[in-house]
Amino acid sequence: MTPTKPGPDAGPTVALDPSPDAIRAMAAEVIDWVAGYHESIRERAVFPRTSAQALQERLGEPLPQDGRDFASLLDTFRDVVVANARHNAHPRSLGYVSSPGTAVAALADLLASVLNANLTAWRSGPGPAQLERVTIDWVRQAVGCPEGTDGVFVSGGSMANLAGLAAARARRCGPAVNAEGLSAQHRPLRVYVSEEGHHSVDKAAALLGIGHANVRRVAVDARFRMDVADLERRIAADRDAGAEPFCVVASAGTVVTGAVDPLADVAAVARREGLAMHVDACYGGFARLAPSARRLFDGIEDADSVALDPHKWLYLPVDCGCILYRDPGAARAAFALGADYTRVLETAPGEAFAFWDYSPELSRRFRALKVWMALAHVGARAYGEAIESNLDCAVHLGGLVEESEDLELLAPVGLSIVCFRYLPAGFRGRGARTAEEEAQLDSINERVLVALQRDGGSYLSNATVHGRFGLRACILNYRTMRDDMRRLLDDVRRAAVEGGA
Amino acid sequence: MTPTKPGPDAGPTVALDPSPDAIRAMAAEVIDWVAGYHESIRERAVFPRTSAQALQERLGEPLPQDGRDFASLLDTFRDVVVANARHNAHPRSLGYVSSPGTAVAALADLLASVLNANLTAWRSGPGPAQLERVTIDWVRQAVGCPEGTDGVFVSGGSMANLAGLAAARARRCGPAVNAEGLSAQHRPLRVYVSEEGHHSVDKAAALLGIGHANVRRVAVDARFRMDVADLERRIAADRDAGAEPFCVVASAGTVVTGAVDPLADVAAVARREGLAMHVDACYGGFARLAPSARRLFDGIEDADSVALDPHKWLYLPVDCGCILYRDPGAARAAFALGADYTRVLETAPGEAFAFWDYSPELSRRFRALKVWMALAHVGARAYGEAIESNLDCAVHLGGLVEESEDLELLAPVGLSIVCFRYLPAGFRGRGARTAEEEAQLDSINERVLVALQRDGGSYLSNATVHGRFGLRACILNYRTMRDDMRRLLDDVRRAAVEGGA
Repeated sequence: MTPTKPGPDAGPTVALDPSPDAIRAMAAEVIDWVAGYHESIRERAVFPRTSAQALQERLGEPLPQDGRDFASLLDTFRDVVVANARHNAHPRSLGYVSSPGTAVAALADLLASVLNANLTAWRSGPGPAQLERVTIDWVRQAVGCPEGTDGVFVSGGSMANLAGLAAARARRCGPAVNAEGLSAQHRPLRVYVSEEGHHSVDKAAALLGIGHANVRRVAVDARFRMDVADLERRIAADRDAGAEPFCVVASAGTVVTGAVDPLADVAAVARREGLAMHVDACYGGFARLAPSARRLFDGIEDADSVALDPHKWLYLPVDCGCILYRDPGAARAAFALGADYTRVLETAPGEAFAFWDYSPELSRRFRALKVWMALAHVGARAYGEAIESNLDCAVHLGGLVEESEDLELLAPVGLSIVCFRYLPAGFRGRGARTAEEEAQLDSINERVLVALQRDGGSYLSNATVHGRFGLRACILNYRTMRDDMRRLLDDVRRAAVEGGA
Repeated sequence: MTPTKPGPDAGPTVALDPSPDAIRAMAAEVIDWVAGYHESIRERAVFPRTSAQALQERLGEPLPQDGRDFASLLDTFRDVVVANARHNAHPRSLGYVSSPGTAVAALADLLASVLNANLTAWRSGPGPAQLERVTIDWVRQAVGCPEGTDGVFVSGGSMANLAGLAAARARRCGPAVNAEGLSAQHRPLRVYVSEEGHHSVDKAAALLGIGHANVRRVAVDARFRMDVADLERRIAADRDAGAEPFCVVASAGTVVTGAVDPLADVAAVARREGLAMHVDACYGGFARLAPSARRLFDGIEDADSVALDPHKWLYLPVDCGCILYRDPGAARAAFALGADYTRVLETAPGEAFAFWDYSPELSRRFRALKVWMALAHVGARAYGEAIESNLDCAVHLGGLVEESEDLELLAPVGLSIVCFRYLPAGFRGRGARTAEEEAQLDSINERVLVALQRDGGSYLSNATVHGRFGLRACILNYRTMRDDMRRLLDDVRRAAVEGGA
């Protein structure tokens, strides 16, 4: 590696402001790793065997007073950090809702960091800001929200759900809630979400001062979709008890079983009852690009707000969430709190736009660049095909589980999620089980999961379905093929042996 | 550029999963731009002349169904997005609190996006998670918080201030506030921050359901620092009126004039009155690395929480904020809301760590990598020297203003911020002015600022100081030298002519 060459202003700035040649030399090393990493991804163990103590021994040191050369830092990154990472880009990294990232989006993140636009308002960077405006409209089109819908990119789904609830709260309570707070609100506000909805709704309610006990969990049907009759009953009961129902959160892709609530039916209740409707489509929303899933999202056009995660099914690197508002002016009431130095001197509508009026953030990374580059490079059609292939893998895996005597499906396949469990000899081909047997299966499957994660051939996470401990696969990777489903089950069976099941 | 070569699994995945050769070809084009951008930065106009309409005409199009090649996207990025960006890395980009970014940190962002670790909990990526734990401790050492302090990186200062207030609220109200919300809290909670404190405190209070009207603005002294006697009076008056004071937010670097509140005195009041103390050190905190500024931060060690922005004075690209808690266990009460699928199966203390228990976020970008790489590559000493040089530039600019007949300092230089205004002929060398004359000066300086921004040679933002419109320079760039201060004033004078002042 070419050593960093001091320029005329040498001193502390050499490491901060390397010469173009030094940048090229460092970048060459980085790109070698990048290309090699993509090439090696299928051969890596998904999950490392290590401990916090072992890593601390290799990484821990006091704040360094003197700098060290980039090459040695890159060595530590490769040899310690990467060697002990979970490889989310691996085709059998199927835990949680975990995106692989894409090479083009990662390059877009480099470009964004070099340009370092800070998207607080249009004037903060006209070109970057306008690109975000265009890209938000692409996202709107992808998920089927009506024209006039607007929004911003945020750090992730938790923030998007918080933003949606804050906007709903402002619509219900008016400006007084921002000024006086909720201690001036005597009737407790109530939010409705299905039993399967994401816990970030509870967290948002807690943060917003609504309280997570005021998040009412609505029953689900046999396919884990919100039971709309139960929703109506709960709203009525809360009204009778003097509470103030204000918002229903529909899930468009629950993270446990991939259920999509009946959005049109939920919208009808929301309209009838005067509630805001927020859709948590963080996991599932972009599945609307896949023809076979499209109709599941009918009704999303009636939502007041939609939370999305381009860093999920657009396969982008974290972080990139998104919040869309059907009535952006109303949402503005939740966030617009002017300060003098944030005064916008511009008057043309496009140029007066301030991103800080639509989410909790002020400084904002140029997240739009990777979304724009990925959508424009791949195109909506190919995205749809890749997502369709993920859905197909899930159905395929579900089929393999159903035809296996030693495996049992715990829930219908929802979008790209399959929940199942391993049945050791003695539990196979039988009907009802005792509570004790069920508890045994829970503990066996927990051991299987730990053994599988340690093995590193495939990675699943856990899910509780009807109170039972399940293994859960979420296929959200353009690299994942049908054959990976077979290999996953081989790995599960090997883990069952290793785990002593 | 080498065309993307379809592999054996060709189809939609070619654009999503390019071959290593295709990645190298795309990266080569990107790195050419990166090196060239760094080389050209001093020659660029800081701010573009464009309009939302002109940009929309070039960027606007419906969601593309078919993909297009990377080279053409990079052209659009260069020719439209970059050509119409504000160049925050330019040595005379002195508006707001705006970081230049560094080449090494940008490369770290690329590495982070390729690895795509999602730092939800330790197990989500042991190597990356442990690196964040190490880096958070470096940040703690840099700003002088006691051992045992812990925290997480967040998207920015607004989120860090929100997290600090949420933690303070939980400490005061106990778990009930998260469960039942603030409508069960009959006495309004009150927060104290100086008149010069950041408006994200108001925004956080609004979001948290406390209400921005319950943020009490404390008077400041002649150097714009919190008047601690006024703080005590306000707390007492609020108590008498039946409200519940719970938190004081001290500013360690106000964004308008760079004032640092007397932290030790504020801490003494907080301790005596039983209030939590949160320090908003987003702008100023890392100035503690500069020997001349170090003592300003005495007392920060007594804060319950500290909000920081490595994407400010560590010169890193957005986004990277940070929240530190002196008592991490207490902070956990504000955010820990378990869901089954986020259950941590690990039991070793380091491995049971879940980042989501300490901030509003769940999915989290591997922000720590750029902080770690930058601190390790540059070293704390050279960071201190670069920051010292920024402080020196501000003092130098203040001196140039004071010795100029056509310029007037509006506030004492605070950290690296200088607020001043232009005086046209007829306003120079005189004492008291009438209200009408002051209004004239406001409007003249607003025209000067607009003309300066359009000119593109230097970039300042506006500030209101004692009710007057000021030009404000914030020096936060390792490229900025003393000579840039002279050139800035040349540009201001030219803008004064162009603006008709």
